[in-house]
Amino acid sequence: MREIAATWMRGGTSKCWVFRREDLQVPDLSVDEVLLRIYGSPDHRQVDGVGGGTSTTSKAVILAPSSQPGVDVEYTFAQVGIDEAKVDWGSNCGNCSAVVASFAIREGWVTTGSSETAVRVLNTNTDQLILQHVPTPDGRLDEAASDTIPGVPFPGAPVRMGFVDPAGRSTGRLFPTGSPRDVLGEAVGGVTVTLVDAGAPVVAARAADFGVRGDEDIADLDRVPGLLDRLDAVRREAGVLMGLAPSPEAVARAVPKLALVSGPGAFDGEDTDLTVRMLSMGRFHPAVPVTGSVALTLAAGVPGTVVHDLVRPDRPATGLRLGTPAGCVTTFVEEHDGVPVVGVLRTYRRLAQGSVVLPDPPLLPSVSA
Amino acid sequence: MREIAATWMRGGTSKCWVFRREDLQVPDLSVDEVLLRIYGSPDHRQVDGVGGGTSTTSKAVILAPSSQPGVDVEYTFAQVGIDEAKVDWGSNCGNCSAVVASFAIREGWVTTGSSETAVRVLNTNTDQLILQHVPTPDGRLDEAASDTIPGVPFPGAPVRMGFVDPAGRSTGRLFPTGSPRDVLGEAVGGVTVTLVDAGAPVVAARAADFGVRGDEDIADLDRVPGLLDRLDAVRREAGVLMGLAPSPEAVARAVPKLALVSGPGAFDGEDTDLTVRMLSMGRFHPAVPVTGSVALTLAAGVPGTVVHDLVRPDRPATGLRLGTPAGCVTTFVEEHDGVPVVGVLRTYRRLAQGSVVLPDPPLLPSVSA
Repeated sequence: MREIAATWMRGGTSKCWVFRREDLQVPDLSVDEVLLRIYGSPDHRQVDGVGGGTSTTSKAVILAPSSQPGVDVEYTFAQVGIDEAKVDWGSNCGNCSAVVASFAIREGWVTTGSSETAVRVLNTNTDQLILQHVPTPDGRLDEAASDTIPGVPFPGAPVRMGFVDPAGRSTGRLFPTGSPRDVLGEAVGGVTVTLVDAGAPVVAARAADFGVRGDEDIADLDRVPGLLDRLDAVRREAGVLMGLAPSPEAVARAVPKLALVSGPGAFDGEDTDLTVRMLSMGRFHPAVPVTGSVALTLAAGVPGTVVHDLVRPDRPATGLRLGTPAGCVTTFVEEHDGVPVVGVLRTYRRLAQGSVVLPDPPLLPSVSA
Repeated sequence: MREIAATWMRGGTSKCWVFRREDLQVPDLSVDEVLLRIYGSPDHRQVDGVGGGTSTTSKAVILAPSSQPGVDVEYTFAQVGIDEAKVDWGSNCGNCSAVVASFAIREGWVTTGSSETAVRVLNTNTDQLILQHVPTPDGRLDEAASDTIPGVPFPGAPVRMGFVDPAGRSTGRLFPTGSPRDVLGEAVGGVTVTLVDAGAPVVAARAADFGVRGDEDIADLDRVPGLLDRLDAVRREAGVLMGLAPSPEAVARAVPKLALVSGPGAFDGEDTDLTVRMLSMGRFHPAVPVTGSVALTLAAGVPGTVVHDLVRPDRPATGLRLGTPAGCVTTFVEEHDGVPVVGVLRTYRRLAQGSVVLPDPPLLPSVSA
């Protein structure tokens, strides 16, 4: 039995356990083995571990100070399997990213500014630099709950996150096929989609092509017969076109994500520019993955994409107002040092801290539950 | 912002945060307010707190050493609301009870024996004394994972728990109506049930009376049209007959529990004496509530109950082998100092420890999510 220092944090609409990279080094065990056992996987309830039995609550954030030029903190994201004894290292979680600046400042890894501090975070899964701004009045991290975001009913501490030059981090190009739109094969209905790589590889597909409006509650979408299966088939076909896998079967669950898009709307009297319901890990996301919102923001600016066709024509140029199941999420687009920075405001909160307990080997289930 | 010492533990098939009673005393806030905010309630996902968004993962165990004669530890159970800003103090959770002896020994509240230690635990919700035996070789608590129980895929540390003289703790009588069986009103189908109070108030109803076999997977039972609603109506009608509330509407969600019972079966080649699917907090339990297993064990021994009619005739007198969705759970019945002791073996594990973070007031949600 071994205790491993850990902090449980909410980042945006996700919950993740946060570890220092060195603390997960356990003799004779891989990091995958350590995480799986701590989280109680494989088990659909994760009843014997700290995992929450859902994709948004079975996540780990692994951090270390960086010696790379222009980088303060190296950040690795792990999606810990629930039913499967498998850790997915292939994607980033934008919501979880929101905890990094605060954790790094508390650890003393970053010199704080007198009113706010910019922390340069490198996500190692996607080689993506994320600039994070947090308030540090008098040089001290302010964790006061001053802001709210859709999908989180309580206020939290703010972090403004910008993805620096996010195009093509996974595939080399903003549009991996070279085209702003592609027609998929007849096997998946011959639908027209936009394949875009920014923040994460994303397939944008029109809700109307699947017989839904696109602004439904996700519980209602879950009940549309065959919809999840059809969308996953589209996602897998698209993943192959994007060069992410050699065959539909080999496409990962986490990447690419799929965005079901439809036209502008309104939310609590606030205009939106585009309506989105996004698939993440096989389920509709309760709000929107941050990485997906970055991809849609860049796609919206390029004529020819299915997103550009749908987006409100007179929208502001400063970002994109996304109508999500939880409310309006507004992204921003800026230019710094000649490269685009795309991002969003998130909140975070420390939920618990101390240590998690790793049992002694053997670490596999003893019975099928 | 305030940090409150806490330990996250699995007890049986539940997960609970464990607190010292004194640590939950916060100036100007009730314990209910403190728990709800720590857990992130009200919110169906509990995304901003340590609750897990399900009834078996939104539980708190609150402990203090006892000065009462014959009692080592006082144990209070709290079912923390998820969607509702409400803490239910009206029942015990037998699975969570399993963490108490170990926590008390680690705190130094109990003098350990040289090979095993009996800890006398008083559940204050139900005024129920629970004798808990844990291994303490050389006087030190042994947390090694040596045992397994149905519903938990990993092994855990054992605790043998006996409910001392459990009959009538909530209502004063083993059979609150004075009869081993009662016929409910026509409004709920006129079904014959057994109303029994031991461990917790339980309604035992025959699966056959609801058109199901009783050994189905709980996912299949969840899908039987109207079944959950019918069973809840029966449960509420029965709650009134048991004197737990003045009207069906006023019956609590947590009490009474309802056991859908059917005849003996087998599990992995092991004979069972009775098959059970139990409702807890409006959902089918993935295994069986410990308190419910105590009630069924006593009811099985009394001719005239619907349980006695169904149970394997040649079963051992030492306990009851319950066929649950997760496997066979075997209870025991013993006599100590002239009173019956009914119980079961559970396992437990420390998952995490340190502190949870209570934000500053106001503690209510700022937006509807």
